[in-house]
Amino acid sequence: MGPVWDNMTKMGVVVESVPENSVIQLLHILVQFNTTYYYVVGIGNTERQFWFTTPPEVGPDVPYTFGLIGDLGQTFDSNRTLTHYELNPLKGQTVLYLGDLSYANDYPYHDNVRWDTLGRFTERSAAYQPWIWSAGNHEIDFAPELGETIPFKPYTHRYYVPYNASGSPSTPQYQWLETELPKVNRSETPWLIVIMHCPWYNSYYLHYMEGEGIRVTFEPWFVKYKVDVIFNGHVHAYERSERVSNVAYNVVNANCTPVKDESAPVYVTVGDGGNLEGLWTIMTEPQPDYSLFREASFGHGIFDIKNRTHAYFSWHRNQDGYAVEADSTWLFNRHH
Amino acid sequence: MGPVWDNMTKMGVVVESVPENSVIQLLHILVQFNTTYYYVVGIGNTERQFWFTTPPEVGPDVPYTFGLIGDLGQTFDSNRTLTHYELNPLKGQTVLYLGDLSYANDYPYHDNVRWDTLGRFTERSAAYQPWIWSAGNHEIDFAPELGETIPFKPYTHRYYVPYNASGSPSTPQYQWLETELPKVNRSETPWLIVIMHCPWYNSYYLHYMEGEGIRVTFEPWFVKYKVDVIFNGHVHAYERSERVSNVAYNVVNANCTPVKDESAPVYVTVGDGGNLEGLWTIMTEPQPDYSLFREASFGHGIFDIKNRTHAYFSWHRNQDGYAVEADSTWLFNRHH
Repeated sequence: MGPVWDNMTKMGVVVESVPENSVIQLLHILVQFNTTYYYVVGIGNTERQFWFTTPPEVGPDVPYTFGLIGDLGQTFDSNRTLTHYELNPLKGQTVLYLGDLSYANDYPYHDNVRWDTLGRFTERSAAYQPWIWSAGNHEIDFAPELGETIPFKPYTHRYYVPYNASGSPSTPQYQWLETELPKVNRSETPWLIVIMHCPWYNSYYLHYMEGEGIRVTFEPWFVKYKVDVIFNGHVHAYERSERVSNVAYNVVNANCTPVKDESAPVYVTVGDGGNLEGLWTIMTEPQPDYSLFREASFGHGIFDIKNRTHAYFSWHRNQDGYAVEADSTWLFNRHH
Repeated sequence: MGPVWDNMTKMGVVVESVPENSVIQLLHILVQFNTTYYYVVGIGNTERQFWFTTPPEVGPDVPYTFGLIGDLGQTFDSNRTLTHYELNPLKGQTVLYLGDLSYANDYPYHDNVRWDTLGRFTERSAAYQPWIWSAGNHEIDFAPELGETIPFKPYTHRYYVPYNASGSPSTPQYQWLETELPKVNRSETPWLIVIMHCPWYNSYYLHYMEGEGIRVTFEPWFVKYKVDVIFNGHVHAYERSERVSNVAYNVVNANCTPVKDESAPVYVTVGDGGNLEGLWTIMTEPQPDYSLFREASFGHGIFDIKNRTHAYFSWHRNQDGYAVEADSTWLFNRHH
């Protein structure tokens, strides 16, 4: 359960009214900017009260702080990651979740109780601030051998995404994105962030090049529209790239080496939330030029938008104190 | 309407019982190899009789002749293509259809009558021999502005494909193909053919590199399993490649130029069926090394399997006599 923003004036509250069978009700209510709302879940003796604070009014210089968590799962390490995020002095106001939630399909029979326990585990944050979810491969839950033939069923029945609000129902993703990217007015919205489960500029052995199919399709757009940063999960480790692109290739010209490109996004992989599959430590050698920092430690990220010109990214490892930054970088907006 | 093979012992007959609203019934009957069956469509005064001949018993040296038609549409040129196919002395026994059928979506309001007229136009062949359909982009018919929000609805409601028989319902294509390719016993089935709408080794301006996303995903498998030939449509012209692959790329090694590869398929584009969008004449220059022959003329192809070691491909232009081959090549089986 928890709040989810459709846009800045309308909010949907997801209420898991009957946890046992995971029925979810969605209430649309109009809210004010920058205001704390209280809400109650349950009936009678099971009533529990939570609250959330709506975001500030939209403007190019409004600061806002995002938390970045991916591939969390529900282990002791997952608990450490979430605790570190909660106690980080750089207070995150909304979590951008980078896919792979409960890892229910790693348990016998895709144990759906794991979907509920994941919800209970993350409630301590997700009930009080929005988590914007993106789907990963562990959400597919396609298991015809168990009679489960609808991909993403446990996920989509529990996690609301602003799918209708974005005008995208039944639209192929390609068509939606093609019409969506030109709509962003970078004077009003200086920072353009993409979250996507599978990384393109990965240099770990696992999942290496797995995103090539979608990269060759979408990367030219992300460079054209100067996406600031792309956050990924999927790889259970941390990695940060320089601004790099690989869009010059035309089949016969052999121009397929990633190059420094100031129009390109920074790529950050934060798939190190702590799930039961563990850390992935094997890296490709030598470290590719595009890879600026890589380390296989559990942790989370913070993306702190200061104003229209500056944003600060930091990565926080679970083995460090709450305020320690193991890696960090300033992002300078290329439109201002 | 017309016969469709699920496999070699069971056959589905698609009967368009009420053409006005395009209700389709599917009958499964057990049939004998190499036998002509007669069937009746309609009731009373509307009864019409057709027939088809079942394929010969499976064996590595059984000759079989496929016709290849793509992007047919329903113009004078389409009619010429189908007539040439019918009168070609190399008698095709089954049509491998390479996607884009009726082009209904090119007419105002996606005029669905065009789906019925396409069926009536092709009946003279499709009622008497199997046409194995693959879907193209003109089958999508996604038109939310008309209230049509289910992709592929007019197509899937009219064209039966052996989707259940192949065990693929609800399976993502990637998973299905990954398990399907190793199953092919090349001693029993010497020739492995893939039909796919969008070409990978295209050198026409239109749709150039459009298939890169799927190429980087599937090409390594097609090389590993030594697919003999891949037939494509989509590009409204003809092109034939040498055996070529482009699978050495690892992001940092710059090895992304297509190379001659005896394990790779031959790629043939036969998207020149004759639809209302016309021929596409603009080519990339210079002609890439991988492209052995390209010409923007309407026509069809024939793939004539002689035995376990030899197959013969020919391309037949509409402006030539029925027996003329504008391009041709022998394929030598690499397993025998």
